[in-house]
Amino acid sequence: MIDLFSDTQTRPTPGMREAMARAEVGDEQSGSDPTTNALCERVAALLGMEAGVFMPSGTMCNLASILVHTRRGDEIVVDDQSHIYNTEAAGAAALGGVSVRALPTRVGLFTADMVEAAIRPRQRTAPRSALVSIEQTTSFSGGTVWDLAEMRRIRDVAQGCGLVAHIDGARLLNAVAATGIPAADYAEGFDSAWIDLSKGLGCPVGAVLCGSAAFVEAAWQWKYRLGGAMRQSGVLAAAGLYALDHHIAQLARDNAHAAQLHRAVADLPGLGLDPTAGQSNILFFSVEGLGITAADFAAACMKEGVRVRALGTHHIRVTTNLDVDQAGIARAAEVMRATALAFAERS
Amino acid sequence: MIDLFSDTQTRPTPGMREAMARAEVGDEQSGSDPTTNALCERVAALLGMEAGVFMPSGTMCNLASILVHTRRGDEIVVDDQSHIYNTEAAGAAALGGVSVRALPTRVGLFTADMVEAAIRPRQRTAPRSALVSIEQTTSFSGGTVWDLAEMRRIRDVAQGCGLVAHIDGARLLNAVAATGIPAADYAEGFDSAWIDLSKGLGCPVGAVLCGSAAFVEAAWQWKYRLGGAMRQSGVLAAAGLYALDHHIAQLARDNAHAAQLHRAVADLPGLGLDPTAGQSNILFFSVEGLGITAADFAAACMKEGVRVRALGTHHIRVTTNLDVDQAGIARAAEVMRATALAFAERS
Amino acid sequence: MIDLFSDTQTRPTPGMREAMARAEVGDEQSGSDPTTNALCERVAALLGMEAGVFMPSGTMCNLASILVHTRRGDEIVVDDQSHIYNTEAAGAAALGGVSVRALPTRVGLFTADMVEAAIRPRQRTAPRSALVSIEQTTSFSGGTVWDLAEMRRIRDVAQGCGLVAHIDGARLLNAVAATGIPAADYAEGFDSAWIDLSKGLGCPVGAVLCGSAAFVEAAWQWKYRLGGAMRQSGVLAAAGLYALDHHIAQLARDNAHAAQLHRAVADLPGLGLDPTAGQSNILFFSVEGLGITAADFAAACMKEGVRVRALGTHHIRVTTNLDVDQAGIARAAEVMRATALAFAERS
Amino acid sequence: MIDLFSDTQTRPTPGMREAMARAEVGDEQSGSDPTTNALCERVAALLGMEAGVFMPSGTMCNLASILVHTRRGDEIVVDDQSHIYNTEAAGAAALGGVSVRALPTRVGLFTADMVEAAIRPRQRTAPRSALVSIEQTTSFSGGTVWDLAEMRRIRDVAQGCGLVAHIDGARLLNAVAATGIPAADYAEGFDSAWIDLSKGLGCPVGAVLCGSAAFVEAAWQWKYRLGGAMRQSGVLAAAGLYALDHHIAQLARDNAHAAQLHRAVADLPGLGLDPTAGQSNILFFSVEGLGITAADFAAACMKEGVRVRALGTHHIRVTTNLDVDQAGIARAAEVMRATALAFAERS
Repeated sequence: MIDLFSDTQTRPTPGMREAMARAEVGDEQSGSDPTTNALCERVAALLGMEAGVFMPSGTMCNLASILVHTRRGDEIVVDDQSHIYNTEAAGAAALGGVSVRALPTRVGLFTADMVEAAIRPRQRTAPRSALVSIEQTTSFSGGTVWDLAEMRRIRDVAQGCGLVAHIDGARLLNAVAATGIPAADYAEGFDSAWIDLSKGLGCPVGAVLCGSAAFVEAAWQWKYRLGGAMRQSGVLAAAGLYALDHHIAQLARDNAHAAQLHRAVADLPGLGLDPTAGQSNILFFSVEGLGITAADFAAACMKEGVRVRALGTHHIRVTTNLDVDQAGIARAAEVMRATALAFAERS
Repeated sequence: MIDLFSDTQTRPTPGMREAMARAEVGDEQSGSDPTTNALCERVAALLGMEAGVFMPSGTMCNLASILVHTRRGDEIVVDDQSHIYNTEAAGAAALGGVSVRALPTRVGLFTADMVEAAIRPRQRTAPRSALVSIEQTTSFSGGTVWDLAEMRRIRDVAQGCGLVAHIDGARLLNAVAATGIPAADYAEGFDSAWIDLSKGLGCPVGAVLCGSAAFVEAAWQWKYRLGGAMRQSGVLAAAGLYALDHHIAQLARDNAHAAQLHRAVADLPGLGLDPTAGQSNILFFSVEGLGITAADFAAACMKEGVRVRALGTHHIRVTTNLDVDQAGIARAAEVMRATALAFAERS
Repeated sequence: MIDLFSDTQTRPTPGMREAMARAEVGDEQSGSDPTTNALCERVAALLGMEAGVFMPSGTMCNLASILVHTRRGDEIVVDDQSHIYNTEAAGAAALGGVSVRALPTRVGLFTADMVEAAIRPRQRTAPRSALVSIEQTTSFSGGTVWDLAEMRRIRDVAQGCGLVAHIDGARLLNAVAATGIPAADYAEGFDSAWIDLSKGLGCPVGAVLCGSAAFVEAAWQWKYRLGGAMRQSGVLAAAGLYALDHHIAQLARDNAHAAQLHRAVADLPGLGLDPTAGQSNILFFSVEGLGITAADFAAACMKEGVRVRALGTHHIRVTTNLDVDQAGIARAAEVMRATALAFAERS
Repeated sequence: MIDLFSDTQTRPTPGMREAMARAEVGDEQSGSDPTTNALCERVAALLGMEAGVFMPSGTMCNLASILVHTRRGDEIVVDDQSHIYNTEAAGAAALGGVSVRALPTRVGLFTADMVEAAIRPRQRTAPRSALVSIEQTTSFSGGTVWDLAEMRRIRDVAQGCGLVAHIDGARLLNAVAATGIPAADYAEGFDSAWIDLSKGLGCPVGAVLCGSAAFVEAAWQWKYRLGGAMRQSGVLAAAGLYALDHHIAQLARDNAHAAQLHRAVADLPGLGLDPTAGQSNILFFSVEGLGITAADFAAACMKEGVRVRALGTHHIRVTTNLDVDQAGIARAAEVMRATALAFAERS
């Protein structure tokens, strides 16, 4: 099977497994796991930030950031297709007492003007606007890459109004691979940012959240309180270090694979592809124009050995990843194109 | 001054004060305040519900309802101009751990289809959709009256999917006055509903929240926990009973006053009046077309002795109320019209 | 019936009702209710604090104080018999995400040393100790009056360790009446303190929470968020001003009445009276030594027209109050003594 | 160095590392990690429960259990030396809105009678008592082993009053090793229970929480919301399976080692050893009788190459573990005895 369901489902490579098996470890809670420490320092350097903390998931990176940056009764600003708003089970409200203001967007991108308009006036009847989060790349709208200049305008507007600026960088390194802009440039001046290890980088578990030393210390307490403090996490961190050494280059390949799939289907009638799609390792489109459901499309592809993801009633998400090589992509392109054409004929 | 800032600022009439001074009282916390009990029974009957509880404010009615109907991590569905989303300081999230999904609307009205589309699938990554709230009449978009049939479709879709249906009836009685539809018809089948006493009804303090006996018992604990449990609240409840006897008829007059103001300015160029406006006791319009800010417009009216409310940069809200009589409305109409024309000439 | 169940159940006197009926009012939310403003200023002056805010209950005073002074995940220190720990339905945890450390005490009094020992070390695994609260007088252990010097030691230890110091002054004015120490002396240097209007002072509704201007502004937002913001609250505040003018002297009388009841039963075998009891307007004792339950004792007194309160299986609480005069107290003393003797004979 | 600081600091053995490197993995979030699934089934069987979920820590096991079993505003009952009360950074309150009632105990053990007395009456002013938790073995009071019969009485009292009964089994398997009573007997009839993999069992990361299938499904959503959902967690679960195969026997050895240390110091004057101490793999004692601080004692031992843990000002905790063999224990016994004697002479 050619599995394009998600980049979270990749399995560790033999080299990565070996690195994990040989990892030097200690107790991360007492700061004495050397491998975890090394990973945190490395990612902090990559993002140009002071310090980092290893987390069991990207969701905990977002949650801990919100918990550090806000007080109960605050409001945060995100896009309406973001992971925070849609796929974190309302953790910000449930666990932080924080309201989420989801800006209406087409593909997950908003503007500094929209942020400015969304900031609440300081009055008793309004929550305090406390944080704006940018998801680079956008996840549920096709892996669109945020423009650096707009990110900085948003950051400046936010910070100028007393909000903090946060980057959900689950696929930030895919953006880096797509644009050549260093991760530290994207993160510059933001109050917190993180990257996921278990997406394009292919690690089994984990993410690294970065910011100032004071921020990371506060995030550490929330990691502990949330139950994310582990012991000899060096066995996981070793995979992260291995990935930073060996898998960064694969992200550009994944992006190229997505572009290849994009070209294969871009001209098909009935496929609702956004003009901004295919910028990184995700392809997102509607099959409504084919008169079928996403489940129909996914099932038809699966019959030909290609797994894609149905999202909602009419949308398909395809995510290139470490486990699918050029031959797999070529085959997937063929299958997706043929499937779409077959449905188009029938409709 | 002719004060059209809000219907919350009315002062108790001599008759109401006398009723308060003579109120028979007891301790509401032990269920022995006869006047408070009588008020709760009367409002429950008015709404066709089993029981009621007296609250210090409408905000506590909404909050306690959310706290009873949801668990932390749930999501509720409201319109994006609602009091819950905009003017309760994010209490649902802050105090209930509940996320708010604000449906994008023009004048605070949404449809059953929009609710259906907004209900989250049952999966680990999504909050549980738990409650839909309808604000009758809409507050920040001009006092628009919800259509009964649409309310019932929304109620049925919500309850069919396991959500509860709630009415924020701060100005429900203005809708009743406008349509002639009894309050109990609006509330029929809903899980909770409340009316405010300190808006059009002219009481100094309070609101009554109704639902099943079990709901009210649970709401009582939240009232207590939130600090809303009082002692001899009969002094306030007496005002409510007086208002139900003597001020209901005034609501129709207030609605007629708003319609009169509407007619006075409806033909003016530059005033952005929504076609649905003027249905109850609120008039809401933009002065952006006059090239001025809301503050400019409000200041000009105030100079002529008419107080209106600037909301945001360009919107004006005018609310007719118990303290303004026909002469006041005639004068206000004249002033608002003249003010708009004067600005229109200059622009 | 001679009602000694609680001092919360008193009914407003004719003079108080008249003051309420004539109260000048406005909208408290826009700061324009002159009577509410006057009450807040008066209580702030009484407590030697900068500002005050009117609340619908003492429970909201405690809750709002905790919400202002803490962040989620903090811990507060109280005595194990306190209103906060036992009779606020866990509001601090439920609504504030705050843990309560209840110090084990005999009659609600703890020491500065106990506070010092209870303050958590600053480490990731521990909550931050954020606030210590003193209930003056103690409520569920017999109205014991806190010693001023110990209160100040506690305040200093707390503030020296970064905690804030708070006074739950539900019956602070009973302590003032008992000791002659001015309320401002008790509250000096504390970060927040409040008095209840609907206990010994005999008002129907309300309490006033005081502190710095910044504290009160923050408390105002929580009052609003909790649903405690009212409109023409001057009708209630007028009762408070009346009570401060006319009922302060009655508190000394209530205290004397409790002492009289104390003397009447102090020598009886089988009555478990604490040596510290009878210092203010509450008498608290166990009837376990009589071989009966508190319900038995209360029922026997009720048959003779005297209402006392059974608390738990074996404790009786008697609270003198505005509605019971000297003749009533004399009769109550007689009944309680006779009842205890009758049970003692049988056992 | 002979490290007796904690059993959490053990490093994975070569055999465990090899098992991890060869683990078959999938995505645990889609239920397709076979190794994680196998571990959960195995632990569920061990505890006699229906299902299990892998967690990154024992703290998350407790927190998720509380979040599933309670509603905001509930109260849970624990001992005052428990991990939940002292070392989870008030997570239950901070994240769950749940109040903690800590029963005063000497060594972490309470009785069914104490639980019964601590259950709140059902009234508006009281939180709902919702859960009782037993920590087997007690952690901060010397690894005392709970008596099975008392555990069952507590379970029955709790469940009879509508509470759920939970076991914090961080070191449950040490109790099993000490008494020979199977884990399933301890957990029988409880609503939830968990074991830690990274304490005596020597795994780098993780714990397994068990209960009914419905409980585990609900716990899974909280795991996700808290940020504990991982991807290819089979690399960690493989260590757990390895430990269940190879390290269970070592727990008895660790217990024997603690008993050996106990014998070595039991007769020393000035060492405050509880009579119940030394039952499992922890030794806990006060050095106050020696006239020194715990830090003094720990430093003196460290100078001789033995690491023990100072807890608070005067207490020492010694925890035997997988990384310390018989020779190490003999040496530690010698050093601890000599250290205590030396201090005793000086004092």
